[in-house]
Amino acid sequence: MRREANFNLVKEIFEKAAFVRALGIELTSFGKGWCETQMPLSPSLRQQHGLAHAGAIMTLADHTCGGAAASEVPEGRDVITVENKVSFLRPASGDLLTCRAEVLRAGKSLVFVEATVTGHNQSESALIAKASSTLAVIERSKS
Amino acid sequence: MRREANFNLVKEIFEKAAFVRALGIELTSFGKGWCETQMPLSPSLRQQHGLAHAGAIMTLADHTCGGAAASEVPEGRDVITVENKVSFLRPASGDLLTCRAEVLRAGKSLVFVEATVTGHNQSESALIAKASSTLAVIERSKS
Amino acid sequence: MRREANFNLVKEIFEKAAFVRALGIELTSFGKGWCETQMPLSPSLRQQHGLAHAGAIMTLADHTCGGAAASEVPEGRDVITVENKVSFLRPASGDLLTCRAEVLRAGKSLVFVEATVTGHNQSESALIAKASSTLAVIERSKS
Amino acid sequence: MRREANFNLVKEIFEKAAFVRALGIELTSFGKGWCETQMPLSPSLRQQHGLAHAGAIMTLADHTCGGAAASEVPEGRDVITVENKVSFLRPASGDLLTCRAEVLRAGKSLVFVEATVTGHNQSESALIAKASSTLAVIERSKS
Repeated sequence: MRREANFNLVKEIFEKAAFVRALGIELTSFGKGWCETQMPLSPSLRQQHGLAHAGAIMTLADHTCGGAAASEVPEGRDVITVENKVSFLRPASGDLLTCRAEVLRAGKSLVFVEATVTGHNQSESALIAKASSTLAVIERSKS
Repeated sequence: MRREANFNLVKEIFEKAAFVRALGIELTSFGKGWCETQMPLSPSLRQQHGLAHAGAIMTLADHTCGGAAASEVPEGRDVITVENKVSFLRPASGDLLTCRAEVLRAGKSLVFVEATVTGHNQSESALIAKASSTLAVIERSKS
Repeated sequence: MRREANFNLVKEIFEKAAFVRALGIELTSFGKGWCETQMPLSPSLRQQHGLAHAGAIMTLADHTCGGAAASEVPEGRDVITVENKVSFLRPASGDLLTCRAEVLRAGKSLVFVEATVTGHNQSESALIAKASSTLAVIERSKS
Repeated sequence: MRREANFNLVKEIFEKAAFVRALGIELTSFGKGWCETQMPLSPSLRQQHGLAHAGAIMTLADHTCGGAAASEVPEGRDVITVENKVSFLRPASGDLLTCRAEVLRAGKSLVFVEATVTGHNQSESALIAKASSTLAVIERSKS
């Protein structure tokens, strides 16, 4: 069942990625063509002014784009980031970041995905970053 | 002395950024308009296939671009990432990544920087990523 | 009246840009924070395989992003492109391209905009490109 | 002879692209992994302030990246732009733009290229834009 296989891949790329676990990124929901995650803004994710580091935001966006792309590829295939551009719309000063990635087009060899990153504190939420990424569909390595 | 102030800023953004320290990123050298760093590829920086996670590579590139940009701004000013695009040329499977960022143009309000990320293992080195970033010059916050 | 001034600026940047007129780009509608355009795919806009040239698509996307950004800036100000990234999702083989740009965030000095480009032929439409752009707010030059 | 075939492809993509001819873009020199072009800044390539339109600059950069990528692909293959990001470092007010594109990595299915665009007037030259692009290697269509 192709659909089942894809969904396993989405879960796997979150369970088996050490860096993603180290940052506290969690898969919150996903379906065919989309993926949602969250990342609590612990002190270790911050830069010199106490804001979320651009690299932590890019990691969240990149991996969530990977999750969305993974949901679209057939069994026996995997995805890898070709390039990712992230625009930083506002400083990320809140307690929690959430991310939603959506596939713009899933081709045989390339998948185009975009993602929004939203910052949350106790009283409000704001769009803090927008990502635009291309991923390549590759053969799945045995592990 | 303007030059002194800039160089202090470069050092500060590496010393005071918790996320950068957590990833093991080190400032190795810098001058007016450029910055070099390194990041040993510890297990916690890897993704599901044992390669360096795209997010770790983007963090290294982004912060090194920040270092290069910081070297160009006058005293009392700081820099913040507006956007960053990273292209992933090859899988990063080595033991150590090094990064060199160079300023393409430093304007009053915007600084354009690019960076290369090179992977190293015991026997060879290879270009693994190229970044292109825009940073904004902002007022330096007291801390 | 700030609103009036903005809307004048949107119209002006379409009327006075020789390159945009040369390509046949038309402003079809706009409001605060968004802009829509169209460009008939004449033979002179095509590349070696008869498809719309990436550069024509980028021009359409860039100028429409400019229109959306222009609608947000106060009187006496203008906008200029800082950077623009365009992803090409599908070959553009139709008769007409339409573009819609939307402002993601309008700050005092920078405006973040994204745009979709859709291709149309007699029977169908398809998303062919997605753009992500940063523009700077500058002083309006007298002319 | 593979090399011969590549060089034919470079020449072809400049000769057969109507949009490129319409803009006055000329192939000035090329070799394996690089390509150089020029574009006189005629009035029809300008925007509302008399500067080169961002879209004309992006077209020059994109097609030159295509030329550099084309020089690397084997006979029977062609290249198509996947995505292109262009940063605008300075206003382009001169008489002539030149562009040099260099391949960062040529893989079997993807080619990564970057390009610089330089503006020239009678007395001086300046770097005005930097492009970063991914192209896909595709089967060459008969024509």
